[in-house]
Amino acid sequence: MRQSEYLLNTLRERPSEADSEGHGLLLRGGYIRQLAAGIYSYLPLGRSVLRRIESIVREEMERAGVQEVMLPSLQPAELWMESGRFETYGNNLMTLSDRHGREFVLGPTHEEAVTSLISSEVSSYRKLPVRVYQIGTKFRDEKRPRFGLLRGREFIMKDAYSFDLSEEGLDRSYRTMLEAYNRIFTRCGLRFRAVEADAGTIGGEGGNHEFIALSAIGEDTIALCGYCGYAANLEQAETAVGSSKAAAFENVASVSVTPPENRDQPAPQNLPPLEKFHTPGTGTIDQLVSVYGLKPEDIIKTLIYRAGGESVAVLVRGDHEVNELKVGKYLGTPDIALADGGAVEAESGVISGYVGPVGLELPLLVDHAVAAMLEGIAGAGERDFHFRGVKPGRDFPLTQVGDFRNAADGDLCPRCREGRLTLHRGIEIGYVFKLGTRYSRKLSATYLDSTGAHREMIMGCYGIGVSRLLAAVAEQNAGEGGIAWPDELAPFDVHLIAVSMKDGAQTALAEKLYVRLREQGFAVLLDDREERPGVKFKDSGLIGAPQVVVIGREAASKRVEYENRISGAKETLGLEEAVLRITEHVNNNRI
Amino acid sequence: MRQSEYLLNTLRERPSEADSEGHGLLLRGGYIRQLAAGIYSYLPLGRSVLRRIESIVREEMERAGVQEVMLPSLQPAELWMESGRFETYGNNLMTLSDRHGREFVLGPTHEEAVTSLISSEVSSYRKLPVRVYQIGTKFRDEKRPRFGLLRGREFIMKDAYSFDLSEEGLDRSYRTMLEAYNRIFTRCGLRFRAVEADAGTIGGEGGNHEFIALSAIGEDTIALCGYCGYAANLEQAETAVGSSKAAAFENVASVSVTPPENRDQPAPQNLPPLEKFHTPGTGTIDQLVSVYGLKPEDIIKTLIYRAGGESVAVLVRGDHEVNELKVGKYLGTPDIALADGGAVEAESGVISGYVGPVGLELPLLVDHAVAAMLEGIAGAGERDFHFRGVKPGRDFPLTQVGDFRNAADGDLCPRCREGRLTLHRGIEIGYVFKLGTRYSRKLSATYLDSTGAHREMIMGCYGIGVSRLLAAVAEQNAGEGGIAWPDELAPFDVHLIAVSMKDGAQTALAEKLYVRLREQGFAVLLDDREERPGVKFKDSGLIGAPQVVVIGREAASKRVEYENRISGAKETLGLEEAVLRITEHVNNNRI
Repeated sequence: MRQSEYLLNTLRERPSEADSEGHGLLLRGGYIRQLAAGIYSYLPLGRSVLRRIESIVREEMERAGVQEVMLPSLQPAELWMESGRFETYGNNLMTLSDRHGREFVLGPTHEEAVTSLISSEVSSYRKLPVRVYQIGTKFRDEKRPRFGLLRGREFIMKDAYSFDLSEEGLDRSYRTMLEAYNRIFTRCGLRFRAVEADAGTIGGEGGNHEFIALSAIGEDTIALCGYCGYAANLEQAETAVGSSKAAAFENVASVSVTPPENRDQPAPQNLPPLEKFHTPGTGTIDQLVSVYGLKPEDIIKTLIYRAGGESVAVLVRGDHEVNELKVGKYLGTPDIALADGGAVEAESGVISGYVGPVGLELPLLVDHAVAAMLEGIAGAGERDFHFRGVKPGRDFPLTQVGDFRNAADGDLCPRCREGRLTLHRGIEIGYVFKLGTRYSRKLSATYLDSTGAHREMIMGCYGIGVSRLLAAVAEQNAGEGGIAWPDELAPFDVHLIAVSMKDGAQTALAEKLYVRLREQGFAVLLDDREERPGVKFKDSGLIGAPQVVVIGREAASKRVEYENRISGAKETLGLEEAVLRITEHVNNNRI
Repeated sequence: MRQSEYLLNTLRERPSEADSEGHGLLLRGGYIRQLAAGIYSYLPLGRSVLRRIESIVREEMERAGVQEVMLPSLQPAELWMESGRFETYGNNLMTLSDRHGREFVLGPTHEEAVTSLISSEVSSYRKLPVRVYQIGTKFRDEKRPRFGLLRGREFIMKDAYSFDLSEEGLDRSYRTMLEAYNRIFTRCGLRFRAVEADAGTIGGEGGNHEFIALSAIGEDTIALCGYCGYAANLEQAETAVGSSKAAAFENVASVSVTPPENRDQPAPQNLPPLEKFHTPGTGTIDQLVSVYGLKPEDIIKTLIYRAGGESVAVLVRGDHEVNELKVGKYLGTPDIALADGGAVEAESGVISGYVGPVGLELPLLVDHAVAAMLEGIAGAGERDFHFRGVKPGRDFPLTQVGDFRNAADGDLCPRCREGRLTLHRGIEIGYVFKLGTRYSRKLSATYLDSTGAHREMIMGCYGIGVSRLLAAVAEQNAGEGGIAWPDELAPFDVHLIAVSMKDGAQTALAEKLYVRLREQGFAVLLDDREERPGVKFKDSGLIGAPQVVVIGREAASKRVEYENRISGAKETLGLEEAVLRITEHVNNNRI
């Protein structure tokens, strides 16, 4: 492609609409443009990168034996009512009525459509398993679209679905997909982790993984163990008993079997009694810390929740956060929410900042880390007063001890119990979910087994945010002058820059190299514009090809400057050497 | 691909929903399935054919220097109001409101979105011309979706747009596209014609062509001259003066300069006078023909139209049809409609079947073929009476003579005046339109010319119905047992059929051939199912690969039966010969 003819319009400044570095560079480089909030057009540069991603996804899906289909965006709303998702998706669904008043959903995913399709195509066990995928546009009416392609309202996804005879079959499909996903994201040059995750709205029954690209602007937090490789979504990460770095003592009143740490500490029975002290206007952990110089890890936080119509108190350490998902699972209800001020006062007789476990007449769910405290500071159940010397097990019961908090930086790894967890922000770029019979039951997707009995198909679903992946790669590879695209995703393999179009030797050599490289089948961009060198180099940075060849002053002696953009290495080479170097580079860097 | 693992479910009977032969075979063969009226899912077989079409379209667009972009389906309704199409498209538009109540259009085409995009990316004459395309899903709320993929509500299109400096530039873009389209449809193996066409809703200023695939179920009618190759949409096809095969005499009162035919006929002045005769209950041409044995071509049909608020009478021969587009163009108004019964009586004092030109106090638009009649039969302007011996020019004025009718089978070709026109039904599979400044003016898409002045971009738009093309190919190649796909579109290059999976020699030879052909990079389907031979051959017909290799009884002596599906030729070949024959065939039949 000759740059003089290429539809490319770079911007000097980062547009104000850009809310992340990668997004800013995608806009500055002329990859994408916003048409409406969360809705983007792809210019040729952006479309090229997207097509390379699509190719990788297709290749890996075919390699994994997944067959390509294409399902409609317009789906009858009835289908979504049958599955129950019409309600659970709520306002996030884009819906419309046709001219006859029939209601449709613009698919954000295709579980219903694919289940209904496969159910009508496959009736015998002999035709299972079936694994299908598609790459296409999805719609989601995000409340707050942001970070450009990361959270949009119209976006590209690869979604895949598996239909198996049994749980064992699903395990095989799941592993096949997990491997394919690892290959895809590796080929895209991403720093990512497959983490244990919660199922969210799609639903599922265990065995769910999210693929998270590490990035400071990510909306997900994951916990990683550098020692054993354990990785989990913050929501899902377990906390090991006695896992907290700051834990002073391990109380074993709970079901825990881990022996207590820190045997040097005095035994609880020798501790001083409960002591009330005056703490006016310090109803939050932060205030207690700043006014009295306390440490958050010495404070017991008591939060009152409404769960399934009942009130419960959850106790976590001052430096920890309650994990509502875990509390909900423990109580067996998804319906859990922090009680508002009025409800707290009604239950405890005091404003929320001074609630404490001592004498509180509510079920107490005590996090392991609280149970392990030797003593702590807690609200006295009286306005402007706290207790110090509160002893778990002595001053409040330890009948319900469990894992009720989010993992924290420095926690002991719940798997290996050797390493310490670190928390990272990340972008969800893919998921693999075991759906089981959730959809096949609701939509009656059954097959006849070898005995002639009807059985429900066992399903899995597998997504990759294709446009989001583009954005994640951009975030990870954003640099000063542009995005350094990994080889397999770069819009061009090589960028040739003729420094001066007025110099005959330069234009002739550039043209010769251009023709040679194109004959070899490489994607080449030739900057043949009558622009100043500064403009050309700046644009080249934004285009981010992994190899740049500058045809400048030495063109007269048939020599060019070859640059590997990733390593930064530069060499002066002859024409044939340059062709060879480029050929080698491309061959070595494409799978 | 092994057929035992392939998601393919063929049907024995043509489903009742199929309203054409091709549609029936696409359903029977398991290419597509309907999810809702006019909305289809593509199963792997259909998706394969679609991908091959997409590849051809992409290759030819790139060859023509058109750059790929991707524009959103969700487009702000304001943009459509600016262009005026929100109103003209009316109920055919799919629209929706987002959670904030903002209205969106689901794009049926992308003129607005692309004009707005290019207008913001390109500001200087040095960056023009620009030609872009995309392949994606479009939406149109068809009142009556039918013929499967032919007239759907969600469909795949390739749409392209050109932006030029001048009319001459547009001409170049237009010709480039015209050539690319000819290549694309030729590669798809279609029998098609590029015809002069009317612009329809998209609008344009002359120089519009439609690409029509010939098919009896087509909704378009085109007129073709076998002699000079003239081809036009029926709406647009001119009729030559004196062109009608049945024309008895050419009256030259109009601007026509063609010399009259049939000099043997008596001169008008020698004809007998007007004669009224009783024709009770025969107010239609059909009735006059059947009751009195008249010929339609001897009758003058008088139709009253309301055009731009005025009434006019249009006179065409009894065997001809008024072309409202031509009448509207002559009168300079698009607002034209046949008057209803009441209006006719008010204007002529008689019910519509007995209206005639004699004494009618309305402007008379006389078609050339009527003006050329020696004498004719016409309504007498009195219930149950007609005139015979009505002489154009004597009994009614010939002050406004022109081309006011549709071309008819057997008309003289308006271009070469040698050949005769034949009418054919066809499916519109593509269009190339000169838009001029229609959108650039409304959406202010301007550039700075070399003098620094603002000028409007000159646009063209170019569409291909990708999914419709699939359906058109299916219609043209539908046969007894299935669709005989042309080589470039076939879902598989070769279909290998192991007749009996219980025969070790057969399975071994089939497997060997399968591996060999896949190594060569061919798309191969191996029927390795435990099914009866009859089932296998029937399915093979529906899959329609252009080459079929049957591994049967002769497998023991390493021989197979090779069949060219198009020619029907069958040969018995050894393994290596078969590989060679297949390689040759694929190489010879792919561009």
